[in-house]
Amino acid sequence: MIKQVLIGILCGAAVLTAGLLIGHYGITKSNGSAPSWVTDVAKDVDESLIQKFLSEVDNKQIQENLRELTKVPHMATTAGDEQTVQFMLKRWQDPETGLDQAWREEYMVYLSFPDPKNPNMVTVVSSSDAVLYTAREKEKSYTPDQDDPEVVQPYAAYSPAGQPQGKLVYANQGKPSDYQLLNKTVDLRGTIAITRYGGAGRAAKAINAAPYGVIGVLVYTDPLDINDGVMSDTNETYPHSWYMPPSGVERGSFNTQYGDMLTPYLAAKEETYRIPVENIKGIPPIPIQPIGFEDAYRLICELDGTAAPAPWQGAFNCTYNFGGPGFKPTSAFNNSDVKLDIFNYAEVKNSSNVMGVIRGSVEPDRYVIYGNHRDSWVHGAIDPSSGTSVMLELTRVLGRMVKQGKWRPRRSIIFGSWGAEEFGLIGSAEYTEQYFAKLSERTVAYINVDIAVFANATLRASGMPSLQNVIFKATKQVDAPGLDSTSVYDNWIRYANRTSSTHGPIPKMGYLSGAGSDYAAFVHYLGITSMDISYTYDRSKTNARIYPAYHTAYDTFDYASKFIDPGFVSHQAIARTAGNVLIRLADSLVLPLNCSDYAEILEDYLNTAVTLYQQQLQAQNIFMEPLKNAVGSFRSAATHLDQVIRSSDLANETPLKVRRINDQLMLLDRAFLDPLAFPDKYAYRHVIWASSSAGKPTFPGLADAYANAELSGQTSDWDKVHYHLSVLSQAIEGAAHTLVDVI
Amino acid sequence: MIKQVLIGILCGAAVLTAGLLIGHYGITKSNGSAPSWVTDVAKDVDESLIQKFLSEVDNKQIQENLRELTKVPHMATTAGDEQTVQFMLKRWQDPETGLDQAWREEYMVYLSFPDPKNPNMVTVVSSSDAVLYTAREKEKSYTPDQDDPEVVQPYAAYSPAGQPQGKLVYANQGKPSDYQLLNKTVDLRGTIAITRYGGAGRAAKAINAAPYGVIGVLVYTDPLDINDGVMSDTNETYPHSWYMPPSGVERGSFNTQYGDMLTPYLAAKEETYRIPVENIKGIPPIPIQPIGFEDAYRLICELDGTAAPAPWQGAFNCTYNFGGPGFKPTSAFNNSDVKLDIFNYAEVKNSSNVMGVIRGSVEPDRYVIYGNHRDSWVHGAIDPSSGTSVMLELTRVLGRMVKQGKWRPRRSIIFGSWGAEEFGLIGSAEYTEQYFAKLSERTVAYINVDIAVFANATLRASGMPSLQNVIFKATKQVDAPGLDSTSVYDNWIRYANRTSSTHGPIPKMGYLSGAGSDYAAFVHYLGITSMDISYTYDRSKTNARIYPAYHTAYDTFDYASKFIDPGFVSHQAIARTAGNVLIRLADSLVLPLNCSDYAEILEDYLNTAVTLYQQQLQAQNIFMEPLKNAVGSFRSAATHLDQVIRSSDLANETPLKVRRINDQLMLLDRAFLDPLAFPDKYAYRHVIWASSSAGKPTFPGLADAYANAELSGQTSDWDKVHYHLSVLSQAIEGAAHTLVDVI
Repeated sequence: MIKQVLIGILCGAAVLTAGLLIGHYGITKSNGSAPSWVTDVAKDVDESLIQKFLSEVDNKQIQENLRELTKVPHMATTAGDEQTVQFMLKRWQDPETGLDQAWREEYMVYLSFPDPKNPNMVTVVSSSDAVLYTAREKEKSYTPDQDDPEVVQPYAAYSPAGQPQGKLVYANQGKPSDYQLLNKTVDLRGTIAITRYGGAGRAAKAINAAPYGVIGVLVYTDPLDINDGVMSDTNETYPHSWYMPPSGVERGSFNTQYGDMLTPYLAAKEETYRIPVENIKGIPPIPIQPIGFEDAYRLICELDGTAAPAPWQGAFNCTYNFGGPGFKPTSAFNNSDVKLDIFNYAEVKNSSNVMGVIRGSVEPDRYVIYGNHRDSWVHGAIDPSSGTSVMLELTRVLGRMVKQGKWRPRRSIIFGSWGAEEFGLIGSAEYTEQYFAKLSERTVAYINVDIAVFANATLRASGMPSLQNVIFKATKQVDAPGLDSTSVYDNWIRYANRTSSTHGPIPKMGYLSGAGSDYAAFVHYLGITSMDISYTYDRSKTNARIYPAYHTAYDTFDYASKFIDPGFVSHQAIARTAGNVLIRLADSLVLPLNCSDYAEILEDYLNTAVTLYQQQLQAQNIFMEPLKNAVGSFRSAATHLDQVIRSSDLANETPLKVRRINDQLMLLDRAFLDPLAFPDKYAYRHVIWASSSAGKPTFPGLADAYANAELSGQTSDWDKVHYHLSVLSQAIEGAAHTLVDVI
Repeated sequence: MIKQVLIGILCGAAVLTAGLLIGHYGITKSNGSAPSWVTDVAKDVDESLIQKFLSEVDNKQIQENLRELTKVPHMATTAGDEQTVQFMLKRWQDPETGLDQAWREEYMVYLSFPDPKNPNMVTVVSSSDAVLYTAREKEKSYTPDQDDPEVVQPYAAYSPAGQPQGKLVYANQGKPSDYQLLNKTVDLRGTIAITRYGGAGRAAKAINAAPYGVIGVLVYTDPLDINDGVMSDTNETYPHSWYMPPSGVERGSFNTQYGDMLTPYLAAKEETYRIPVENIKGIPPIPIQPIGFEDAYRLICELDGTAAPAPWQGAFNCTYNFGGPGFKPTSAFNNSDVKLDIFNYAEVKNSSNVMGVIRGSVEPDRYVIYGNHRDSWVHGAIDPSSGTSVMLELTRVLGRMVKQGKWRPRRSIIFGSWGAEEFGLIGSAEYTEQYFAKLSERTVAYINVDIAVFANATLRASGMPSLQNVIFKATKQVDAPGLDSTSVYDNWIRYANRTSSTHGPIPKMGYLSGAGSDYAAFVHYLGITSMDISYTYDRSKTNARIYPAYHTAYDTFDYASKFIDPGFVSHQAIARTAGNVLIRLADSLVLPLNCSDYAEILEDYLNTAVTLYQQQLQAQNIFMEPLKNAVGSFRSAATHLDQVIRSSDLANETPLKVRRINDQLMLLDRAFLDPLAFPDKYAYRHVIWASSSAGKPTFPGLADAYANAELSGQTSDWDKVHYHLSVLSQAIEGAAHTLVDVI
């Protein structure tokens, strides 16, 4: 009996097993088994991978990257620049730590250089043509690398050549109001104006001067503005501190548009049509030359006239005089002129971007772009090599994970090492022109890290409001350099904060409304959601406009490692933060872009606009209701989309649903583009973030149009305000429409 | 024993069943079972559904639609127009056969009307101010509906009001060359010119005249151009045939831009900024009025001067004289003037689009748009109600399938019944302005069926080359009306064909390079892949410019059903063809858009351009290599994408792959947009299909720039050729880039 029972049980078990096997493998379920891609498409960002990334970012590697990048000066298109091209390519093509692919893209771009055989000169010339004083031709050397013959003489790129000679006047910052005021005390015709950096753009100091008959301009950095007043290189300035030595000169590009100037809106290929040089807009009409404050001191303190207004006074231990023109009767320079001998020449030269890519696994046709320029004025340790060192560390860590088969991002990541940024963001602008359609259709976001570290105090972040959330998330996971158990986020909120209507007190982000670095073409021309981050100053400790070696021959590895970021821990924090954001943008199932945070900023802008303009506009029979309605529509649509995201189980629904939502988030900024909104501003198309001269925290085109109309009082100018209000309302309504699937 | 065996078998069966059930349902497979959406996302177009659709399209329903739509005149914004709005809404909101949703969208648009209290007059006035002759105020009635008081007096919309009086001259078609030639024989200052339709746009006849001092223009339709010469209404013209009766007058909009003229690039909402009326461009600077050939005959045959050149002669049994000015000495009108009393006025009026949608099941955020205008000049049986009747039959058949739960398209279908097309494609243009970002991001294609049937002979199709393949496929499945076992395709190829380098002999499609109907804003402003189809003439049987009742009071149900399409079988063929294309665009897994067919046309255009321009351009140091390279890149990229499609098992791969390919196909035309390419052409941005005055089968901007440069010989004009060559090359290269996933 037991045997029979056992046999029965065994048979039963065998039959059951057969049934189980047949049932499981032999009978196809109604929907079939899930294909392997079902899990792939639902994968979200892997937090452990982010932790691994953070731990692998190495400050020493960043330091060595910087050392390599700053061996020689690498001004755009020079042999030193080519050396950095080769270095980037070598790193990005490294079989152990490189990217999937790396290559160069070349453009023939219009640049401007001083003539090494005829150096620019600034002299004081007596009435009998005797040279009484000659400004320094080169900056003083404190370290051997400053003796490199490739250190370019300080000059103003795109200043015309010329030999203007005339009486000197001091014109403060060269703003329109400065020349206007000065012109009341002195006839400016035939004069040379000396101005200090700040207040107005570089080229503007000459553009603003020319209408008054000024024939040449000098520009220098006042110790008040850069050195917290200190001046002496015996014990105060570099190499004793981060401050600018007396002979230091800020070089720069003296133009107001970005991109190659001969090929507006066209990638500057060999056969591309080039406009006649005389049609270039936004460059100085008269010669301009930068000098050190050592020379400026000699010139300014000898000037005739009465004391200039208090805001015109700088740090020199003399009174900055106003009027003249020319030198005091008591000066050795009495009756003398200042003469500029400028021999700059322009040349179309071959500039390279170095590009690299990690191909996305699930959505290769979605791009996160990360970039920085590669070219510097001299050695460029901080500008831009701090950012390039960070980028190279990022690509080393990510590239290794890819090469080892441990990771491949959901979306493609494109890295750009842009050329010729210093001459006007040229490499990045040409890139956006060449690939306009593809980039605007597919780019999720652009991350720019140019100068990674200005100083060691706190994070600074600027960008579209939709990126705020992911930046906050990343900064909460990164330790603040030099502080125990404080996150970058917690440190940041101490230095810069605001109260959000939704989130309460949060760190304050800036906006990318200008064209200060390579994000410009991405933001303003392509309408791509962008950000720019760096570590920066404690403003309670310095008033320096920018780190004092900026664009001088002192921006070297020695300077960076001694005075900007000893130990490279701030560089490391930036690499970790930027990389964290990058991975989240590339890997998240739902893009970490928040449209409600965009709505909040539009509401802020609207409230400001209503407060500033509504009453006066009503008096002109112009009503703000369409703008109010548009912002209201945007808020509703954003709330709705957030609700859809929150209430969906996106990992288990069709991947086309998450793609649809992601497309709405990705393309949101594109909806704010209007190629006709700013007819006078080259390649500014984003109606929310365009540059503005009105200086109001609100919609830029509206603010500028209003300021113009208020000044002129003309009906045609009020019409322009009404027109821009319609442009703006339609763009915001249009953006709201894109946050809804069908109707 | 048998019992035990039976029990054993039963137990065994029970255990096996339990095993099967547990094995099948209780144990999760490694990848889990496939979610239900896996099959949904892979679904392709259902051929049996297309057959069902084709069989259900009913010619009688189309006939009844037309009867209803043409009950009263329905000029834009009139009570009759509102009646059609209500009718469309009723049909599209029908619970049995309607769409998911239907609604109206309103715009405040700038229109122009004659004054019913002060009808426009054209008179012959003697030197003593006696009225010797008065042209007809209204067309003669042959059927009761033509007596409707709402039949608008023939007029030229947007002609200014005014009472010019002067000697009459005959100016042929009012082309620039006509006035130029005429001006050699007679001083045109102070004259009234009489012109015939054709050769130049309506407004152009006045715009071209004004610089010569002409003060007023008449326009009529010569029987040569519309009636194959016949003139008599006793036995020849309507109601005896389709030909235009002697008093028939073609109304029309006399403007050269499209969209609301006061709100360029902005949707014409109530508060939208409106430009000053005096800034409107492209409308007649002098009064112009259309008249019937009956009146034109009286005027032209009395004219003084010598015989005009042969191409100027029309069908009247007199010599068309040239010169004068004024009437012959032998005429009763000798020494008399012609006087125009034009009382047109402009008004901003509320015009509606009626919109409807069938929401897509799998990709609701992809749109196929199908549209036609609703407004007519009078009863508009053919223009536009033939198309609207077809659209309503389409929506009835599709709507019923949706309401019955038998079908839901993969992608969303949007139907548009546009307002105020006759005044300048206003409704569709405002729609594209209002929803610019959303439509350009998501629209797969636009199908326009305006006049569905011009005549009964053959299909005519125009559109982007990428649609050729799906149009061919659809036309092969539709029977040609009135022919046994011949498809629309086989019939079409007999009337219009070409030899394709890829396909051999195929029907010849046209291009949408003008702004003849509501596709204009979709093609030129949004860059959306578009098509327009109709049934049309046998050109061996008539030379009529267009069907003879076009824009007259004779375009009625009676006319359409007797002379254009008795039995409505051509309407049916158009409904079947358009619907077939629509379903394929909405339902196909891979979009039926072929980028290699685009490449073929670009190559044709390139070859023509090289033949016509290369030698002369080289002499100007302008080289066509970048354009050749661009077209080559495009061909390679297209071949590659075709290869990817062919070699993929897209129904079984991740749906993100097919979406990626579809996005590339969908957005291809967008890559050809350049908002700066045609600074003088309003809302023309598509560099391949823009209008051109050079009349060459090649790239329009290049052809026009070349023609200008050749004429002027100026360097600045050759520069413009070079510039446009760069614009074009960059756009085509850019489009090629978009056909590749990453790099």
